[in-house]
Amino acid sequence: MRDLNEESITAEVLCAVGQAENPRIRQISESLVRHLHAFVREIEPSQAEWEFGVSFLTRVGQMCSETRQEFVLLSDTLGVSMLVDAINHRTADAATETTVFGPFFVETRPQLSLGDNISPGVPGVPLFVSGTVRGPDGAPLSALVDTWHSDDEGFYDVQVSDELKMRGSFRTDVDGRFWFWSVKPKYYPIPNDGPVGQMLEAQGRHPFRPEHVHFMIEAPGFQTLVTHVFIDGDPYLESDVVFGVKTSLVTRYRECQPGTAPDGTQMDRPYLVLDYDFILAEAAAQ
Amino acid sequence: MRDLNEESITAEVLCAVGQAENPRIRQISESLVRHLHAFVREIEPSQAEWEFGVSFLTRVGQMCSETRQEFVLLSDTLGVSMLVDAINHRTADAATETTVFGPFFVETRPQLSLGDNISPGVPGVPLFVSGTVRGPDGAPLSALVDTWHSDDEGFYDVQVSDELKMRGSFRTDVDGRFWFWSVKPKYYPIPNDGPVGQMLEAQGRHPFRPEHVHFMIEAPGFQTLVTHVFIDGDPYLESDVVFGVKTSLVTRYRECQPGTAPDGTQMDRPYLVLDYDFILAEAAAQ
Repeated sequence: MRDLNEESITAEVLCAVGQAENPRIRQISESLVRHLHAFVREIEPSQAEWEFGVSFLTRVGQMCSETRQEFVLLSDTLGVSMLVDAINHRTADAATETTVFGPFFVETRPQLSLGDNISPGVPGVPLFVSGTVRGPDGAPLSALVDTWHSDDEGFYDVQVSDELKMRGSFRTDVDGRFWFWSVKPKYYPIPNDGPVGQMLEAQGRHPFRPEHVHFMIEAPGFQTLVTHVFIDGDPYLESDVVFGVKTSLVTRYRECQPGTAPDGTQMDRPYLVLDYDFILAEAAAQ
Repeated sequence: MRDLNEESITAEVLCAVGQAENPRIRQISESLVRHLHAFVREIEPSQAEWEFGVSFLTRVGQMCSETRQEFVLLSDTLGVSMLVDAINHRTADAATETTVFGPFFVETRPQLSLGDNISPGVPGVPLFVSGTVRGPDGAPLSALVDTWHSDDEGFYDVQVSDELKMRGSFRTDVDGRFWFWSVKPKYYPIPNDGPVGQMLEAQGRHPFRPEHVHFMIEAPGFQTLVTHVFIDGDPYLESDVVFGVKTSLVTRYRECQPGTAPDGTQMDRPYLVLDYDFILAEAAAQ
């Protein structure tokens, strides 16, 4: 293979990557080469534009750290994450809808007890979060409920300090119920001080996500559910920068006056209640 | 835009990125979204495969440093660099053919005088390199000739030490000639201790490039020429991992016995001569 030109090079690269022994790696490699070359052929980049592309991707990679995943942000803001999510959740059934995982989950999150406050000392409006986890048949599940969300200024813990807050992991009770205290989150811009932020600006897009609480719920024999609960009336529900809003996931806070909260806590000031019931899909037969 | 599904999401993302004011940014963004979504739709990645993709690209970015450009290697090994090169050099004329820039050019390379040795103290077979730089009409050009190549074990200076060797920048003489001394390079594997090396292995490909000397030649009023000179008989000429070989760039060494070299140097041992004449294309009218 010599003297490859604009027309002949793609077939030759397909031959090269087609040597992969693993059929899935071969399939992905061949598809990547075909679509990547088609993209390049269509836009006909100058050398300077190609160099900018290389530099952009390099900067995306170098922005990544223990607490920042810029390539997830890139995937999210180009709609790839929600497309992958849709492809992996095709079965229409009673299960709660899914949405993006996002870049802010932390593996070492605190393991807490039902009723605990995941945001002690964090300023903001008190929020009581509760719900149930059930199978499609309505049977309560013994599930691991992970939650994480922003503070009342729209920042996640890992963006502003080393201390983990506004996140935790709970085990449901025998009736499949969970509950905990926190503070009201807020809509927020995704981290936009890096190359993805520059891309959004160049594309004339705002960087905001509507207010939401993340959930990841796991139970043996069921598909792990990755989703959010959104709040009705948020100004960014119709223009989420990561394309993640589903109507079935939008609910309202219940506004409560000082008094006895649902778990018996005596509240001396107003608080909000967020109640949402989840249904997990059965794991696909292997 | 809510409740986007596998079918509707691409149109919505196209709407979002289509807000770009700059028409070229809009065109590239839209083309990227269409081709990227088509790729994802075709391979239908599992969540774990998507996570692997994010992690792969992150590792490619994080492998990059002052002296290592892993995204250039990724572009090179997927044939994108040569495709971009072909798109940018369509005019068929008398000019010397082009090939990939590669990741080993160093901006701060030494500025040397004609006849200098770019590899003092480097072990290997002595190599006298010479040639001319002319325009399409045969007129000699006052040009800046940059050269860089591997050592006799196939490593570039930046891969093994902080000292710049086997590279330099020369100004042609009034007859458009240049000449310098160095050592014979060798075929080599591209750096394959990173994610691109893992990709090549998974694809069943060797990581080798055939022996070559890089040239970048600049002269006012002419297109900058980025190319290599390859050596006939090399075992990797037909399977260059970056798809860069062109027959017109392949030549032979002249094997010389001890005695007076072309520049008058008295050689006490055998040496090689690499002679190649370059023709620069006129700069496109702006």
